[in-house]
Amino acid sequence: MNIAVLGTGTVGDTIGSKLIDLGHTVMMGSRTTTNEKAQKFVAKHNGKATAGTFADACAFGEIIFNCTSGGGSMEALKSVGDNNLNGKIIIDISNPLDFSKGMPPTLSVVNTTSLGEEIQRTFPAAKVVKTLNTMWCGLMVNPVLINGGDHNVFMSGNDADAKQQVKELLKSFGWIETNIVDLGDITTARGPEMYLPIWLRIYGATNNGAFNIKIVK
Amino acid sequence: MNIAVLGTGTVGDTIGSKLIDLGHTVMMGSRTTTNEKAQKFVAKHNGKATAGTFADACAFGEIIFNCTSGGGSMEALKSVGDNNLNGKIIIDISNPLDFSKGMPPTLSVVNTTSLGEEIQRTFPAAKVVKTLNTMWCGLMVNPVLINGGDHNVFMSGNDADAKQQVKELLKSFGWIETNIVDLGDITTARGPEMYLPIWLRIYGATNNGAFNIKIVK
Repeated sequence: MNIAVLGTGTVGDTIGSKLIDLGHTVMMGSRTTTNEKAQKFVAKHNGKATAGTFADACAFGEIIFNCTSGGGSMEALKSVGDNNLNGKIIIDISNPLDFSKGMPPTLSVVNTTSLGEEIQRTFPAAKVVKTLNTMWCGLMVNPVLINGGDHNVFMSGNDADAKQQVKELLKSFGWIETNIVDLGDITTARGPEMYLPIWLRIYGATNNGAFNIKIVK
Repeated sequence: MNIAVLGTGTVGDTIGSKLIDLGHTVMMGSRTTTNEKAQKFVAKHNGKATAGTFADACAFGEIIFNCTSGGGSMEALKSVGDNNLNGKIIIDISNPLDFSKGMPPTLSVVNTTSLGEEIQRTFPAAKVVKTLNTMWCGLMVNPVLINGGDHNVFMSGNDADAKQQVKELLKSFGWIETNIVDLGDITTARGPEMYLPIWLRIYGATNNGAFNIKIVK
């Protein structure tokens, strides 16, 4: 499948590389066509990856992974234009972290809304699915790294078919189907986004980002 | 030990009853001396429990459990007066849920502060420890109900001795010591309080409140 990965940081590189390992073709999107990290990504995946602007990538991709930093996500998507997003699945794995008030970061949108919802509201003809934002990117694409892969990932979105496709993609990453928790419509993205502060504090207390949570009952 | 339990709802009743089972003596505090639920609580624990105003209960207790609803916690504690709180441990298990905007609730304090911090700031000579707010009350006092007791509880507070005492109390409830995660000072209470929205969404998606999270790594 042709997939757009927006963002050239560690998260975009990790997601993009996994998608290529799985046989997909990836275009990495960034602000410019000459982004150095995007060029490195293309070089290391010879022939399986290209790079371009956010708009180029979204025009190319049937599915779009938003791996930009939360603070820049809306600007990146607005630069794309509706016509390259309409009808497509946007897998939003970003977190609206605001580092301007010091560490640990606060959330720039919170409580009565979420970044996932704001993206859906801004691009009503796209199908936004919030997922994977609750963990370190190494675990997103390789859940079996810890606890035999037995831990949870969440999913929020308005479109049932889009969520089904995202679930299949998550399963291809190694996620156990019963550990993928569909929380409901896109407003439920407030939950996983507001989980970030406790994630950051657990990370701070344990000095180890390679953890996740497992729901036990 | 003499312990104050503020609040006459299910949480206060559950915590108070467990404390009595463990041999403590409990005074349940509420707005009035004639609260019906408090009277029932006293009647069912003949001789081991008394009831009074929030101030009466705090004057009695060496340790104070705040089991009031988050929206009413500050008013309840302000009615107590500093002299009945100074130097004492306040175990704050409340959540600042705001139901005024409909269901699910939002948080009345969030992101750049937390209810735990606000209580600590308002009563600087008390020792506030935030804990237990991340689960259904049945699990707070009986963690072994699920997964053989192997799941996590968090703790935030400025005073190391107070946290040590709270840890002992949690262990007496059945918590495994290594599963009690000390997140740090009271500002870290933002994490467990902002966890509530995902708790509510998991509850909504699974229709079962008898769950908790276990950190896996």
